[in-house]
Amino acid sequence: MAEQNNANQTAQTEEKKSTLPGNVVLVGKKPPMSYVLAVVTQFNNGAQEVKVRARGAAISRAVDVVEIVKHKFIQGLKVLNIAIDSEDRVNEDNTTSKVSTIEITISK
Amino acid sequence: MAEQNNANQTAQTEEKKSTLPGNVVLVGKKPPMSYVLAVVTQFNNGAQEVKVRARGAAISRAVDVVEIVKHKFIQGLKVLNIAIDSEDRVNEDNTTSKVSTIEITISK
Repeated sequence: MAEQNNANQTAQTEEKKSTLPGNVVLVGKKPPMSYVLAVVTQFNNGAQEVKVRARGAAISRAVDVVEIVKHKFIQGLKVLNIAIDSEDRVNEDNTTSKVSTIEITISK
Repeated sequence: MAEQNNANQTAQTEEKKSTLPGNVVLVGKKPPMSYVLAVVTQFNNGAQEVKVRARGAAISRAVDVVEIVKHKFIQGLKVLNIAIDSEDRVNEDNTTSKVSTIEITISK
């Protein structure tokens, strides 16, 4: 039991990473180049497809990331699919509001 | 000739509107609801398709606009296509830099 609890705790602290399947880059508030590097690294490690995801204001940055990869790093990059959606976000006062999301699937 | 010049001048002062073909909503810095209203109005005026366009940081807002129209105003709204691209933007010091763009095509 103790071991299992430990495992759960580890899983929780790494939640953000562990809930992402391979080949996903979640774009947040860092400068675009951080995510550009992450995408290029995934392709260099053999990924055929990479999904670039973002929520809210980071959506613009996700598009920047894909455009930078396309124009500066991987010639002939293909945008396979772009999906937009909404998620419920829980605010600090426990109310919920909608936040837009984007998922851009790209391949070499 | 004089008439033609006048027509050209009018065209130039209305450049932003006249270069946009019908059924395009260009999302900028206003609150999302301004653009939501523009989209809904175009559909109510008989448009079959509306293109929602934005550049740079307004890209996130364009996604918000489409999601708000879908969830609050037009049930069954279809996202037909999402295209991303880059444009050259001329800065104040006459250098150019890339700016990302998005065009989301929606239909009732």
